[in-house]
Amino acid sequence: MVKEEIRILGIDDGPFSKDEKEVIVIGVVFRGGKFIDGVLRTYVSIDGLDATEKLSSMINSSKHKQQIKVIMLDGITLGGFNIVDVKKLYSETKIPIIVINRKVPDLKSIKKALEKNFDDFEKRWKMVLNAGKIKQMKLEKFSIYYQNIGIDDEETEEIILTSLRHAQIPEPLRVAHLIASGIVKGESNGHA
Amino acid sequence: MVKEEIRILGIDDGPFSKDEKEVIVIGVVFRGGKFIDGVLRTYVSIDGLDATEKLSSMINSSKHKQQIKVIMLDGITLGGFNIVDVKKLYSETKIPIIVINRKVPDLKSIKKALEKNFDDFEKRWKMVLNAGKIKQMKLEKFSIYYQNIGIDDEETEEIILTSLRHAQIPEPLRVAHLIASGIVKGESNGHA
Repeated sequence: MVKEEIRILGIDDGPFSKDEKEVIVIGVVFRGGKFIDGVLRTYVSIDGLDATEKLSSMINSSKHKQQIKVIMLDGITLGGFNIVDVKKLYSETKIPIIVINRKVPDLKSIKKALEKNFDDFEKRWKMVLNAGKIKQMKLEKFSIYYQNIGIDDEETEEIILTSLRHAQIPEPLRVAHLIASGIVKGESNGHA
Repeated sequence: MVKEEIRILGIDDGPFSKDEKEVIVIGVVFRGGKFIDGVLRTYVSIDGLDATEKLSSMINSSKHKQQIKVIMLDGITLGGFNIVDVKKLYSETKIPIIVINRKVPDLKSIKKALEKNFDDFEKRWKMVLNAGKIKQMKLEKFSIYYQNIGIDDEETEEIILTSLRHAQIPEPLRVAHLIASGIVKGESNGHA
């Protein structure tokens, strides 16, 4: 059984325009789906390769580190195609990771886009594959698609259930999105 | 009776150092003491005179404006001695304002500091006085001191009660502080 107040770190990036070099990334330490314990912040380069390293250092240097039982990501990319290598992030933080996708990720299109836009596309594609198998969790009114590492499917689904409250997306990700978009734009928007 | 999910806008500024010119100010749209509906952001100059104008424009341009039933401030200063003229903010937004103080504000010391540091101290002192009478709300384990405009004491105290959850400070202010300090420092601290 998952504790109702399990500490979840929800991570999301802010919006950015093409002429910018970096984008803000917000981590929200949430107790279950209930309330905020802390806010972390880092920056990653747009379309860069530093997302894994930046997250890992943000998490490992946090005073909340010992309490965080699971990391939640909204997909595996931050700042455009700056891909989080979930396998590496797990090995560097030792904290289980759940990647949330609201639709089935279209891997074919992702591969095509990587091939078209990046000389190092093989490296990036390998990072995409490192996130592992995409699984479907059927809820009453919608489905959530997830990938997980360091944690089994049963516990993953319990944590997702605990963290769903006011939207079709877990609270820690909903709030990380509101903060990141609010900071960048001056006012948050509702679509994570 | 106050609705349990009354929309409260909690406002707090981030930490800053003396060589900076501006500081970030975060507004959190909260439903009662329960959850976040949105995040607003502006900047005010340190020790400047633009706090009232910046808040008023942040609030009046927000899509949440019609839903916000009350504004909560953590004291009346932002960015050092950039004083919020509560009377003016109320007249410009038409939204009632509650100023929360965890201790009785030491008006004598504030007056002295203003006189010592600002040529326009009379103007600033008038803004301090515009926040009105400081009232005490006794709770079981501690007291909260508040000022209010556009709303009577009974309703003010109901709203404060509704919004107290995880700390001796209303949730909208606790979370605004976590966000503002997290953004500036990379990690939030617990003292609002």
